[in-house]
Amino acid sequence: MDSLFEKFKKKNNQITDLTQANGLLGWDQQVNMPLDGAEGRGHVMQTVQELVHDMMISSEMGQMLEDLKDFERSLDPDSDDARLIKVTRREYEKQTRVSTQWVGEYAMAQTLGQTNWEQAKAANDFKKFLPYLEKIIELKKQYAEFFKPYDHVYDPLLDDFEPGMKTADVKTIFKTLRPKQVDLIKAIREKPVIENGFLHIEYPEKDQMEFGVEVIKKLGFDFNKARQDRSVHPFTQGLNVGDARITTRIDPKYIGTGLFGTMHEAGHAMYELGYSPKFARTLLSNGASYAFHESQSRMWENLVGRSLAFWKYFYPKFQARFPSQVGNIDLKTFYKGINKVEPTLIRVEADEATYNLHIMLRLEIEIEFIEGSLMAKDLPEAWNTRIKEYLGLTPPSDAKGVLQDVHWSNGYIGYFPTYALGNLLSVQLWEKLSGEIPDLEQQIEKGEFGALLSWLRSNVHVHGMKFEPQELSRKITGSPIDPYPYIRYLEKKFSAVYGI
Amino acid sequence: MDSLFEKFKKKNNQITDLTQANGLLGWDQQVNMPLDGAEGRGHVMQTVQELVHDMMISSEMGQMLEDLKDFERSLDPDSDDARLIKVTRREYEKQTRVSTQWVGEYAMAQTLGQTNWEQAKAANDFKKFLPYLEKIIELKKQYAEFFKPYDHVYDPLLDDFEPGMKTADVKTIFKTLRPKQVDLIKAIREKPVIENGFLHIEYPEKDQMEFGVEVIKKLGFDFNKARQDRSVHPFTQGLNVGDARITTRIDPKYIGTGLFGTMHEAGHAMYELGYSPKFARTLLSNGASYAFHESQSRMWENLVGRSLAFWKYFYPKFQARFPSQVGNIDLKTFYKGINKVEPTLIRVEADEATYNLHIMLRLEIEIEFIEGSLMAKDLPEAWNTRIKEYLGLTPPSDAKGVLQDVHWSNGYIGYFPTYALGNLLSVQLWEKLSGEIPDLEQQIEKGEFGALLSWLRSNVHVHGMKFEPQELSRKITGSPIDPYPYIRYLEKKFSAVYGI
Repeated sequence: MDSLFEKFKKKNNQITDLTQANGLLGWDQQVNMPLDGAEGRGHVMQTVQELVHDMMISSEMGQMLEDLKDFERSLDPDSDDARLIKVTRREYEKQTRVSTQWVGEYAMAQTLGQTNWEQAKAANDFKKFLPYLEKIIELKKQYAEFFKPYDHVYDPLLDDFEPGMKTADVKTIFKTLRPKQVDLIKAIREKPVIENGFLHIEYPEKDQMEFGVEVIKKLGFDFNKARQDRSVHPFTQGLNVGDARITTRIDPKYIGTGLFGTMHEAGHAMYELGYSPKFARTLLSNGASYAFHESQSRMWENLVGRSLAFWKYFYPKFQARFPSQVGNIDLKTFYKGINKVEPTLIRVEADEATYNLHIMLRLEIEIEFIEGSLMAKDLPEAWNTRIKEYLGLTPPSDAKGVLQDVHWSNGYIGYFPTYALGNLLSVQLWEKLSGEIPDLEQQIEKGEFGALLSWLRSNVHVHGMKFEPQELSRKITGSPIDPYPYIRYLEKKFSAVYGI
Repeated sequence: MDSLFEKFKKKNNQITDLTQANGLLGWDQQVNMPLDGAEGRGHVMQTVQELVHDMMISSEMGQMLEDLKDFERSLDPDSDDARLIKVTRREYEKQTRVSTQWVGEYAMAQTLGQTNWEQAKAANDFKKFLPYLEKIIELKKQYAEFFKPYDHVYDPLLDDFEPGMKTADVKTIFKTLRPKQVDLIKAIREKPVIENGFLHIEYPEKDQMEFGVEVIKKLGFDFNKARQDRSVHPFTQGLNVGDARITTRIDPKYIGTGLFGTMHEAGHAMYELGYSPKFARTLLSNGASYAFHESQSRMWENLVGRSLAFWKYFYPKFQARFPSQVGNIDLKTFYKGINKVEPTLIRVEADEATYNLHIMLRLEIEIEFIEGSLMAKDLPEAWNTRIKEYLGLTPPSDAKGVLQDVHWSNGYIGYFPTYALGNLLSVQLWEKLSGEIPDLEQQIEKGEFGALLSWLRSNVHVHGMKFEPQELSRKITGSPIDPYPYIRYLEKKFSAVYGI
């Protein structure tokens, strides 16, 4: 049996290695590739992805998983080996349920969707995107059918991003969360507007980059295992536990984009670098879920990066680097400035108090798409009605409304809720770890992040994909993903900021 | 038959795509990868290379090549399809001759050889490298045996770098070349030494890079299809006809390293970008041989970059960029300076008149290794005796002698002669193209390189790997690789420079 398991692990290694190669090809495409390399790169990535898919759904893999059943039963179900078999079987079973024809059509729909979305967004012409969106929705509905029986038709889509999570769970969470966030925003609206024009002025790009590096180095971002580049869309690409890469976008007229974006991506990268080395070259060397990934990025960005304790340490350094911008702005004014609440049309620009509303809006629409109660052609109206209702705003154009996000064009229906779940989880984890590191705030005030990172490593990162997200959340915090810690956090923080 | 050929091409596409992925993994390793990414990267590259190897030697490939024989006979033997089958068959037959055990041992010997060579070189301790070199020589002798019968035991090694070339051919060429080069150097030694201290002073790195870019853009290096990075060892990585990458090493105290190195690598890259797009994703999308590749890099570096015509155009710009360094140096003095002949211990620093002697020395030693007439333990003595004889120099250390090059540690025995053959070929091609572009020199004096690049594209680059190097040389110039054009070139050029 041992040699069968070795053979199984070797196949895992091949799949993971090729996936890593694909990761580098994708990173390079966005960071380095010359313009005319696109066509050749497309072919290479398709070939690599097909090989990975073929290996995963091969009859050899099926046979190994079958033959391993006795061995699996002999193991502690929580052992690494048992979990590796379980996670691989899950992937095998999901991927083999889907027809080859669907896979081909979906790949084509993604390519066409992305290209036409770009053009539609640039031209502010939703109609141009409509047929491609319709095709994607149709395919995603077909996809759900491969996974019958399901509790809810949206479940199989969500499961691709949050393994094991159900639509009903998300709905319950959001039902609790939404009125609380809406009430908070109402209360804030009655308070005087915070002035933060000093953030929206010229900050030299070079100094922005250097200050970002100074910060993330302190956080624990290790340049022997990671690198940072510039790109139009910031993202993180983890390759292995010795190589994770972040990209940063700098807005020369606003400090927030680069600074908080850098901390956000560093959070993703530190997660990627923290998987147990025992899991190297196996499927376990991945994040537990998209929500867990987002919990890490949002924690470093918001719970650390937008906290008063953090700025007690960093603000003097920030002022020294940007004397003409903030030399005469005091810490409290700065702190309030970076925590200004202001409903915005654009999700990626949203503050902590309004962000989740952008997600809820998208989730409702996605579910209605898949249930068939909303037609793609009616999307702009549905979008605009709801954004008015949730945030009191009216998009001046579809480009700033329904066309703003890339996700649907890429076929990523089921992805959005993980952003909000990640926010919730970040605070849920924070409540737990604050209990175990009683002087955390004092440490942060001194620019010490070692205990925090170390806690995250040994409680979150090290487990990689070994546990399903709700299971891992329970294991760490004693409860599945729960909205109340986040509600408490928002109310406490913004009551203080706005004097509510 | 058509669908079998389509299947065959699809396999070619897969192999080429994975090879391209491997190319990016290797490029990134040297240019971008964080330190701690090495272990993971090693695994990924090994997996990708094994997959390529497995696909190439698969019984499926063997069967396809067998089944294609009738189809092949029905084709014009010079057609692209016939040549693709031929080139693929050649690879299949070479790779299937070699035992799997040998492949494994050789991969290990390369890894250990490289690591221990680095340490031996740093410690100037040949004995540390000796056992690994012995292993590599032993394995290379075994390798030759897989290809029995051969005319000469070194033939199978040479064939890996110069398909179809024989040891006897190289020996004949070098036998003609050597006395002529030795005589020329003797004649030069009797002339006054050229003063070129102005090249060996501080040249700001940024200006060096910018001037290099200015030059290669003029040559035809297209940044929409190519990029340039800094690295410790300059090299070129071609990925596809829309993506080739060069790296540049800058010496802040010597202008030659960066400037001529940039032109050299740009020459390689322009070759890579010139393969017929029809050959994309097949084995034909490669250089004809290492000598052909080197002919392109050396042509742009030397025949263009160290010519008077070139500097008639560029020298005013060079002076304007480096006024404090060469503002009061006239063109003729500068031209002589960059063409100073001076025997050196280090191959990569050698001038045009002495370079090939470094190669001949190495070829003799390699042949004696493989024939068994020279033992690895006697290498330092053999090296030092010959370098004295050829160049009148005595290495102060093995680090500057027998340990200077990486090639043997990597198992690349058979590679060195291609450098000299590339030099010869560069002039052989130049004689031909000069006849077809009668005003070439006047064009270069005006900074116009379009006709030159266009000639190279349509006569050399476009053919990719379709023809064997000697066949291609004959096709273009009417003769196989021939030393006389190079001898004529050296004698004419250096007689003028030194007033012989």
